[in-house]
Amino acid sequence: MNYKMTAYVLGKMLGVEALVLCIPAAVSLIYGETSDMAAFGITSAVLCVFFLLFGRKKPENGRIYGKDGLVIVAAAWILWSVFGALPFYLSREIPSYVDALFETVSGFTTTGSTILTDIEALSYGMNFWRCLTHWIGGMGVLVFVMVVTSLDDKSSMHLMRAEVPGPEADKLVPKARETAKLLYAMYLALTVAEIIFLLAGGMNLYDSIIHSFSTAGTGGFANHNSSVAYYDSAYIDGVITVFMILFGINFNMYFLLLIKDVKSVWKNEEVRAYLGIIVAATLVITCNVLSIYKEPLKAFRYSIFQVASIITTTGFATADFNLWPELSKCILLLIMVIGACAGSTGGGVKVSRFLILWKSILKQVKGMLHPKSVNVVKVNGKKISNETLQGVYAYFSAYVFVFGISVLLVALDNFDFATTISGVLTTLSNVGPGISRVGPIENFQSFSVLSKIVFSMDMLIGRLEIFPFLMICSPSFWRKHF
Amino acid sequence: MNYKMTAYVLGKMLGVEALVLCIPAAVSLIYGETSDMAAFGITSAVLCVFFLLFGRKKPENGRIYGKDGLVIVAAAWILWSVFGALPFYLSREIPSYVDALFETVSGFTTTGSTILTDIEALSYGMNFWRCLTHWIGGMGVLVFVMVVTSLDDKSSMHLMRAEVPGPEADKLVPKARETAKLLYAMYLALTVAEIIFLLAGGMNLYDSIIHSFSTAGTGGFANHNSSVAYYDSAYIDGVITVFMILFGINFNMYFLLLIKDVKSVWKNEEVRAYLGIIVAATLVITCNVLSIYKEPLKAFRYSIFQVASIITTTGFATADFNLWPELSKCILLLIMVIGACAGSTGGGVKVSRFLILWKSILKQVKGMLHPKSVNVVKVNGKKISNETLQGVYAYFSAYVFVFGISVLLVALDNFDFATTISGVLTTLSNVGPGISRVGPIENFQSFSVLSKIVFSMDMLIGRLEIFPFLMICSPSFWRKHF
Repeated sequence: MNYKMTAYVLGKMLGVEALVLCIPAAVSLIYGETSDMAAFGITSAVLCVFFLLFGRKKPENGRIYGKDGLVIVAAAWILWSVFGALPFYLSREIPSYVDALFETVSGFTTTGSTILTDIEALSYGMNFWRCLTHWIGGMGVLVFVMVVTSLDDKSSMHLMRAEVPGPEADKLVPKARETAKLLYAMYLALTVAEIIFLLAGGMNLYDSIIHSFSTAGTGGFANHNSSVAYYDSAYIDGVITVFMILFGINFNMYFLLLIKDVKSVWKNEEVRAYLGIIVAATLVITCNVLSIYKEPLKAFRYSIFQVASIITTTGFATADFNLWPELSKCILLLIMVIGACAGSTGGGVKVSRFLILWKSILKQVKGMLHPKSVNVVKVNGKKISNETLQGVYAYFSAYVFVFGISVLLVALDNFDFATTISGVLTTLSNVGPGISRVGPIENFQSFSVLSKIVFSMDMLIGRLEIFPFLMICSPSFWRKHF
Repeated sequence: MNYKMTAYVLGKMLGVEALVLCIPAAVSLIYGETSDMAAFGITSAVLCVFFLLFGRKKPENGRIYGKDGLVIVAAAWILWSVFGALPFYLSREIPSYVDALFETVSGFTTTGSTILTDIEALSYGMNFWRCLTHWIGGMGVLVFVMVVTSLDDKSSMHLMRAEVPGPEADKLVPKARETAKLLYAMYLALTVAEIIFLLAGGMNLYDSIIHSFSTAGTGGFANHNSSVAYYDSAYIDGVITVFMILFGINFNMYFLLLIKDVKSVWKNEEVRAYLGIIVAATLVITCNVLSIYKEPLKAFRYSIFQVASIITTTGFATADFNLWPELSKCILLLIMVIGACAGSTGGGVKVSRFLILWKSILKQVKGMLHPKSVNVVKVNGKKISNETLQGVYAYFSAYVFVFGISVLLVALDNFDFATTISGVLTTLSNVGPGISRVGPIENFQSFSVLSKIVFSMDMLIGRLEIFPFLMICSPSFWRKHF
């Protein structure tokens, strides 16, 4: 492992966070929130010290190995969260540090679960920071750092591989840094488009920006206690629904559209499955909740919004689905686990992984019917390598193990079964709301400190797709290196 | 596919069921239940007709291919259940045929879930038949047929492979039929031992026999509404606890003990993990329920009984764990999924499969730390073949898919979340009780016909470890063969 380089990259990263904090500080200035400005300033100053200590001079051996990439990614996310929580704590807007950490982790991992009982009491600056964490976390903390600083290309790719969600990371263009820039350009363009559409619907600028940040990162933080239901507008619901679905699609598809390769997008099996699941889930839920909303159109509007919000793991709410029939709730919990497309800002296990699992089951059945035939798992016409397949299986198994252990720890709080299970599912999949006591109009305040730490871990584990964390938790890792 | 041979084996099997039905008929005779005797007699006669039609003359080509084995196993279990339900229905002891089928499937698959609201109202003969299905189902319907009839050896092995639980089926001795006989001899010996121990505790002969049948098959049917709690005896609880744990161990271990190879048993990783989980779960639950039972010994007695009952997927109850704290309930649900050892009469995913999954996660992490090292998954010092590994993964994935689809169908009944989830888990793992409305002192009567059919399917899918069923459900199977 290259320790010097690791420290250098992490130092640089903290420097970037110091810079980023100037944005919410400026918002605080505009709204005249001086104590918040101070909180941002102090945090920024502390981060600068770390930058000056570690991030200024690049070591001679600048290589990052695959393993280092995983460690850097895990450490980066933890450090950004630990320091990112400081402004909330220092300004006393969130008086408990564990709560502040939970909120920040929930922000960066684009989960959107909150411990705030009254979101409207939060200052403008702090809420802006809260939603900005979604925007940065969506595309990846390190990809962001890569865009604004310079790292040589070999190193960058290892970092991207470790951070971009999905079973396989593709480079769109030969250079990793160029890929990162291209991704962020598309990301920014879509975000600006949403801001404009929301402004056109009569939402004010501040609300438009933070809701677009939350949609883009598929996070779900809002500035009203009743989430998007506050606006009670079919237009705004519609705009956000469409953009949630768009941000849940693999960003490679937008690149393909840019180079006018519509055919590949149309034929992409993951996108088809993703849209298919959305359509099917919406139809079933619309029928299922018809008795509550009476009018089919209204039922459809609420159904598709909640489905899009949950499958993309955004977590906005326009209806309290906690009050919906059991079938609708179960569908939402299932698509919560499925999640969005690989290479999008969404969380969950990812549609492509389920596609691969499904196909490997079919392969097994075929192998039993025709023992002598050679069966391979293909997605989009390309053979899935044995290595990728093993990775998907291991990921899936690890997901189940992490889920089991988390449930046991959270069960110590002795809340009801639905709360415990859906709380773990929603944080591990980076969604936000669950059912029962963590339903869309509830929050995570009433859990114990232990549970809040478990949930924070789950959010990070879910966002980084388990293995970076398993690695730094493995005893053999520490034995070898320290 | 060899149709003639398939029909012949199935016909023979139904003949064996006709013979088996004479046993409960004799019990009915002893207790003077004439209408029950008639019900058993009519069913037996119908089965004899099928035997005479198909099962008398062996076709010239007597070979059974691997694929045929799976079809025969799936068909055998369905047919035995369909006909086995007839006595309950004909005698009007269970007036609805769907209910009777549920009860019979629950019996053969050794699940132990019941639709009966008052078990004590059931006649002696019918309850004997109900518990006898556990005993036969435990070791396998086809293994049973193999013992009492003769099939050539090559054919038998394919059948055994498809029916014996676990990722790999071993032959204890070179000939499959000898292996089956040996398994049944050990099974019978353990069952008789339990009967003697229960008699020594003051239980009457009838109760001793049916409780031993239920323990041996890890089923869980009893003849009192309060299950084993009825006796309220520490001795009887202890005996049943010990035998439940014994029947959850791979029967190969008893063979190894017979040939005095104690070392292999001691070093067996699955048995160690299985006993380790029992000890850990019992300790945690004992502490967790201490506030309910006040005395540590009492808490321990109830904890270990429920843990043994759930992990071996028996389903007997001496306490209503529905009233226990959430942590205890979650532990029970988790060990419900883990299940017993491969090659035992217990259900669930099986300890060895989890062991393999766990090791493959470690392998993945190690591969990330040392990319150039060659990592293989080893259990008991033996390398797990790639084929077995793929099988375990595919099984695990299919389990999750079947679970998801079942939850959606059962959710249509609109019961609470805990009922829906634990109902599916308990049937798919062949345990018996769940939590909430399907808790240990509840039953499955209040579900809709659709849910009862889904549960019946889940029990069969769980018992036959998914693939025989997926195979006969696959469109390509039907396209090729009919």
